[in-house]
Amino acid sequence: MKHLLKIDERIDDLQYKGFKLIQNPKEFCFGVDAVLLANFPIIKKDDIVVDFGTGSGIIPMLICAKTEASHVTGIEIQEYLSDMAKRSVILNNICDKVTIINDDLKNWADYLKPSSCDIITCNPPYKDKGTGIINPKNGKAIARHEITCNLEDVICNASKLLKFNGKLCMIHRPQRIADIICIMRKYKIEPKRLKFVYPDRFKAPSMILIEGAMGGRAEMRVLEPLFIYDDNGSYSKEINMIYDRGK
Amino acid sequence: MKHLLKIDERIDDLQYKGFKLIQNPKEFCFGVDAVLLANFPIIKKDDIVVDFGTGSGIIPMLICAKTEASHVTGIEIQEYLSDMAKRSVILNNICDKVTIINDDLKNWADYLKPSSCDIITCNPPYKDKGTGIINPKNGKAIARHEITCNLEDVICNASKLLKFNGKLCMIHRPQRIADIICIMRKYKIEPKRLKFVYPDRFKAPSMILIEGAMGGRAEMRVLEPLFIYDDNGSYSKEINMIYDRGK
Repeated sequence: MKHLLKIDERIDDLQYKGFKLIQNPKEFCFGVDAVLLANFPIIKKDDIVVDFGTGSGIIPMLICAKTEASHVTGIEIQEYLSDMAKRSVILNNICDKVTIINDDLKNWADYLKPSSCDIITCNPPYKDKGTGIINPKNGKAIARHEITCNLEDVICNASKLLKFNGKLCMIHRPQRIADIICIMRKYKIEPKRLKFVYPDRFKAPSMILIEGAMGGRAEMRVLEPLFIYDDNGSYSKEINMIYDRGK
Repeated sequence: MKHLLKIDERIDDLQYKGFKLIQNPKEFCFGVDAVLLANFPIIKKDDIVVDFGTGSGIIPMLICAKTEASHVTGIEIQEYLSDMAKRSVILNNICDKVTIINDDLKNWADYLKPSSCDIITCNPPYKDKGTGIINPKNGKAIARHEITCNLEDVICNASKLLKFNGKLCMIHRPQRIADIICIMRKYKIEPKRLKFVYPDRFKAPSMILIEGAMGGRAEMRVLEPLFIYDDNGSYSKEINMIYDRGK
């Protein structure tokens, strides 16, 4: 398997059905946000799934491992990351289930048909382009700041790629919630499910999980809260369940 | 004090600085939502406050009791309720601090100047006009369903009455959150603070508290969660603090 690795890369065991992921700890390793997002959509048998801004491919990998989706496509603008994701697909021998495309997500129509997708996931850059000093050639900056795509790009493009009643699922920072809701409605994606992720039960939320339905009617379900840590500072029962530990 | 009471009415002690409220338990008594809303705005010394749809006047009464607002005006369309609220104002001897107006909130301009108000509170009807069978002459129905005013009426009128950077604070059901946020933005009231009220830490939220700032810039703060009950089924510490118990 080592022939699939480049310098500084390592193979991480996803602790689920033997799935593995190539990562470069000097660049970026996936966090709890990716795991929460992969767990959030309700994915049915034979669903077509697309992950916008797939990075190292963690979300397609987890969805492929945990659901009966017929196919997952990950689109990633950064060549190095998409190359790493492609090698993880080969490593797991799931080339028939997962496709990685190296391109700007705004070019999805070069590869996929409009209104063809059941579920789109996206863990977008959290930070506004204007926040702090950033090097636009830096890979981490592209993943974290709205340099190559902003929230409206994600939602606008999702609205064209989703089937009627197809779902866009995102994880984001709570401070962007008004923007997310208003831009979703602008593109006829109705916000339907919303879950707040709190570090613990005494703190403000650090993340939100939101699902919008293409052409859905107005009515939001705000779900049970998710706490990362319990009162003892250990991972909560919910987090252990999502990571498939403590079974 | 009994000369201030009509049939079926009683005087309830608000357990705060001797404040009392006239209520008719056969009609409607205030609930935890009114107490949470009255506690939510950040009211500074000399602020001008207006409560849209004030009912029995519970919110003006609590704000008068707990803050240094210079004046609180409650507007209530139902004659019986506004009359009861006026008698509570007399009962507490706060006629210089609280004014009750019996009119449709949409007629606020007959009594108040545009852009004159620091804080508007509103505990609006939660239910759509179309939900269930309702008698539009019924007082409870007016308080609970969007018969005489809907969410857009509240927000549109608030936007005209608020000063620049004045705050609109509402309590509502979580399922209306997308509507509230989008209508606020339509009228240049930027959603700024959002708090979810959960029955306990295992359940979906039952209420939201939301504050918008007139002309504010985009950035929401989602606050610490509020739980009504603790794990033992007793009122939580936060609820006891809001009710000024357990000091």
